[in-house]
Amino acid sequence: MTTGNINVSVENIFPLIKKFLYSDHEIFLRELISNATDATLKLKHLTNIGEAKGVTYGNPVIEVKIDKEGKKLHILDQGVGMTAEEVKKYINEVAFSGAEEFLEKYKDSAKESGIIGHFGLGFYSAFMVANKVEIITKSYKEEPAAHWSCDGSPKYTLEESDRTERGTEIILHINADSEEFLEESRINELLVKYNKFMPVPIKFGTREETVAEEGSEQEGEEKKEKTITVDNIVNNPEPAWTKQPADLQEEDYKNFYRELYPMQFEEPLFHIHLNVDYPFNLTGILYFPKLTNDLNIQKDKIQLYQNQVFVTDNVEGIVPEFLTMLRGVIDSPDIPLNVSRSYLQADGNVKKISSYITRKVADKLKSLFNENREDFEKKWNDIKVVIEYGMLSEEKFFEKADKFALYPTVDGSYFTFEELQEKIKEKQTDKDNKLVILYASDKETQHPYIAEAKDRGYEVLLLDSPIVSHLMQKLETTKENISFARVDADSLDNLIKKDEEQISKLSEEEKTTLKEQLEKVIPQEKFTVQLEALDSNASPFVITQPEFMRRMKEMSATGGGGMFGMGNMPEIYNLVVNTNHDLVNKILTTKTDAKKERLIKQSLDLARLSQGLLKGEELTNFVKRSYDLIK
Amino acid sequence: MTTGNINVSVENIFPLIKKFLYSDHEIFLRELISNATDATLKLKHLTNIGEAKGVTYGNPVIEVKIDKEGKKLHILDQGVGMTAEEVKKYINEVAFSGAEEFLEKYKDSAKESGIIGHFGLGFYSAFMVANKVEIITKSYKEEPAAHWSCDGSPKYTLEESDRTERGTEIILHINADSEEFLEESRINELLVKYNKFMPVPIKFGTREETVAEEGSEQEGEEKKEKTITVDNIVNNPEPAWTKQPADLQEEDYKNFYRELYPMQFEEPLFHIHLNVDYPFNLTGILYFPKLTNDLNIQKDKIQLYQNQVFVTDNVEGIVPEFLTMLRGVIDSPDIPLNVSRSYLQADGNVKKISSYITRKVADKLKSLFNENREDFEKKWNDIKVVIEYGMLSEEKFFEKADKFALYPTVDGSYFTFEELQEKIKEKQTDKDNKLVILYASDKETQHPYIAEAKDRGYEVLLLDSPIVSHLMQKLETTKENISFARVDADSLDNLIKKDEEQISKLSEEEKTTLKEQLEKVIPQEKFTVQLEALDSNASPFVITQPEFMRRMKEMSATGGGGMFGMGNMPEIYNLVVNTNHDLVNKILTTKTDAKKERLIKQSLDLARLSQGLLKGEELTNFVKRSYDLIK
Repeated sequence: MTTGNINVSVENIFPLIKKFLYSDHEIFLRELISNATDATLKLKHLTNIGEAKGVTYGNPVIEVKIDKEGKKLHILDQGVGMTAEEVKKYINEVAFSGAEEFLEKYKDSAKESGIIGHFGLGFYSAFMVANKVEIITKSYKEEPAAHWSCDGSPKYTLEESDRTERGTEIILHINADSEEFLEESRINELLVKYNKFMPVPIKFGTREETVAEEGSEQEGEEKKEKTITVDNIVNNPEPAWTKQPADLQEEDYKNFYRELYPMQFEEPLFHIHLNVDYPFNLTGILYFPKLTNDLNIQKDKIQLYQNQVFVTDNVEGIVPEFLTMLRGVIDSPDIPLNVSRSYLQADGNVKKISSYITRKVADKLKSLFNENREDFEKKWNDIKVVIEYGMLSEEKFFEKADKFALYPTVDGSYFTFEELQEKIKEKQTDKDNKLVILYASDKETQHPYIAEAKDRGYEVLLLDSPIVSHLMQKLETTKENISFARVDADSLDNLIKKDEEQISKLSEEEKTTLKEQLEKVIPQEKFTVQLEALDSNASPFVITQPEFMRRMKEMSATGGGGMFGMGNMPEIYNLVVNTNHDLVNKILTTKTDAKKERLIKQSLDLARLSQGLLKGEELTNFVKRSYDLIK
Repeated sequence: MTTGNINVSVENIFPLIKKFLYSDHEIFLRELISNATDATLKLKHLTNIGEAKGVTYGNPVIEVKIDKEGKKLHILDQGVGMTAEEVKKYINEVAFSGAEEFLEKYKDSAKESGIIGHFGLGFYSAFMVANKVEIITKSYKEEPAAHWSCDGSPKYTLEESDRTERGTEIILHINADSEEFLEESRINELLVKYNKFMPVPIKFGTREETVAEEGSEQEGEEKKEKTITVDNIVNNPEPAWTKQPADLQEEDYKNFYRELYPMQFEEPLFHIHLNVDYPFNLTGILYFPKLTNDLNIQKDKIQLYQNQVFVTDNVEGIVPEFLTMLRGVIDSPDIPLNVSRSYLQADGNVKKISSYITRKVADKLKSLFNENREDFEKKWNDIKVVIEYGMLSEEKFFEKADKFALYPTVDGSYFTFEELQEKIKEKQTDKDNKLVILYASDKETQHPYIAEAKDRGYEVLLLDSPIVSHLMQKLETTKENISFARVDADSLDNLIKKDEEQISKLSEEEKTTLKEQLEKVIPQEKFTVQLEALDSNASPFVITQPEFMRRMKEMSATGGGGMFGMGNMPEIYNLVVNTNHDLVNKILTTKTDAKKERLIKQSLDLARLSQGLLKGEELTNFVKRSYDLIK
């Protein structure tokens, strides 16, 4: 038996690192600037704890410079720098991260330092875009500067350099395939995408600025202005989410929203500041934007950062599905990157993060509801989709939201479920003690039905979001003794059955005759005739569509509900004929068949018109007949 | 100056490989089965070219076995196997791929062997799910078997084994986090996902099968049946796309579709067999399913394979956007994996693949059109979205599709653009020599307008797909002297202006009076009154909506067109009043103001009804009035 160590041959692994370390080559800049940031923050930490004697931290910046002619890209920092020995240790040995060692060494004090680096592979990403990389670096320690150079072969050279300022300069000799990274616009794009909120100022070029000339004011003369050249700092090192909520005004949150979404003109409705450090570390700000009823197009606006470095705008699996319609920023070093969704979902930390976010959102909504009900009602239509979606998908959210979810009426009142029950229980409880909640999905098309319900003193909710049929289903199974019915699902007498006896002007015999007459004219494959003794002022003919079937079809259209194949079932309509209406009596008593038929047809057409069912050629003919009538 | 080699330390890189080699841990099974497949195909190749003396290739299978109690997963093959020396070379040295060396050595003959392996890292993915991995392997060469074992430390042991059959067994000691991979259902799921079409049969367990007992038939007795246990082969080693089109029947393509989408009950409309080996290698079968008008939900059904190994079902960037609604399989070793979308789009090979696929699809559609026009017309509504989308997004596709794209009329005729021009040029060319193409978007709601156009002998197209407004815009700029107008965009006399003089029954003075009377009653913020001398049988009042504004709004709703902010512009309607209609004359001559007003209001209501603009309370009131009228 032989034993030994598995060997990783650098000749074999180096090309792999160059090609496959990151699928996106542009990542190299993020990695190098992260390294520069770490070098700077390390120095800050060392000066803070008094370990870097004689060094003033000052106001260090990181600088990115393009040398288009020389085909070089420079990244410079004023951080700790490296001695020749450290270069050997951290650069010549792949996958030996200085950051990890540093964090280990200064375990207790370094926790808050914000150091990013983790596996030490980032530096090698430079070889994805450069055929030669140089490092010129001077440590804060009193040692000579070092100059390292490697053409990716993987041979390197290391010699002394005459650099005297502390810090590191990385020089990338950009390869032929990657010349895009010599374009100012491209580098600017990358800096904005990945480094916009990194904690050390990043200088990229200069810009002109007009300022008042010094002293000119004091002398009482006209103000003189002059143009000066200033550093162009591309990042905001202290983004709002890194601050304490107590230190921020409403305006600061709005400004930060504009910083995140410069192309977005609409203001957010409100924000939620996330800030937790146990059992996981997470900061961030989420915004509720105005949402439309289209669920799909509004996702993927939340940006995920780790220690202020942009990672991705796909937070699927981290943020609960129903909150992916929000916007804003989440920053957490505790979210595993580069792993599959199924892995994310199984990860304990991620689960905790997800339920923390859910809880914070629910609490915020609750407090908005409590503090300013009127304002909350105003915003309801813009946020209801998220809340309804959350109530359907997260049980814990449902329990909390049940206290503040609103049910608007067609008249613009807003009730919580409890208030609604209280308000309608007297009139809308049926003879079996079931509370019937009436609703409409469209004020316009269901107008006649709404009007009739209101005439009886019933409240009619306006429930028009795309998933509300699922929510009704859930409420019906969660709450006791309630049911939802759309106003046009049946005659009101049938929707809310009372013990009262209906008095019909027609005898049983007359009803039988009437029904026969009606069924001769009305296509029975389309409408089921249903005689009802209603108020004589109610409509003579009304078309209704039974609740159950219609709702199942709606649920199967928005997915995840109803029964299989339900979407393809035909529409079912009933024709409710009011036996107490004068017109119906006239139909019954009209002698000539032709006249009777004309009356029934015209009445049916009018009922279909009310339910939006008179279309195409039939509508055209109806309109023509009606013009003739007045001509 | 010192020089040296960058060193990759195995202690550092090994944990990285284990953790980050693939974001999805489940990939390990795909990798190990790919290795087993390669080992088998190598043997096949060597026996084919006579290099494996004394070896019969036979019918080798790959077997996957779960040892739940022992917490082990076994993968066995009957391929080339490895000698101890080869284990040292290929396993102990990370990132030294045997496959690459093999392909290099047998360059000319091995091209068609289908060998998958590339970088030799795949084997190490085993350590993502196992804390110990064993290899027991016997080469086809006459050398003793070897037993390699490693606990991922990265220390290994290597000793002789007494295994005598040729081939390799990999034993994974599954770690505590990965026990899901000891579940039969999970392994089956992975085999179906990744290995369903791999070229060597894969056995996973056994199953019972009922067969006729041997000999029972000959003896003239009743057929006897018996139950036998057979290997459960999970894959189809020869999927349809690997065969020549000439060897496949229509039924084979349909069967393969069912194999790909077992949950899909609807049959595909037709297929396109892709098969090219220069300048890149690509095979595959694409299917046109029935498509609905919803563009977004139907994407991501095309599966991408490399040498029969499933890679992904996201073909964004490889298949042109407009074809991502198709279904099927693409298999190409020439598509770079694991790279960013921007990289894909810049890759020369991928560009060629994308335009090859576009061309093949266009050619197939052309030949379907040529060979069976009737059938092509029947399918048009199910495929038009793809074709229209393609015409908009790919100029080359537009040029080809212009010959077979169909324009259906409301009567169910289908014209190519050329045929349409020919058919309508006589009647629908206006006085400025412009060909006006009339269309409707909905036969029902636009019925009265369609009927009137047909009365004049005009053809009316039925264009109802969501992006057709963009296509019209494109056709108007590509073709000369044509324009599209929806039938309700204006009065027909205005839509297709002829030189003929219109004779009005009213004098100029009467017209002025009429207009004043109308404008007193008709809300001018909603309708612009427009007097026209039309046929006395045409409608008295017609509401029209100007083409330009409406189309811009539609285009901005479906994205990528119209002008900024157009979606928020108010709807603009004109009220065309037919001065030659009796009713209009009656309005003019009615003496009492109240009666005049009632006539105008009722006429306006009827016109609004025709255009679908009478809604809500106004409709309810109209219906009530109408009931009273007949009561």
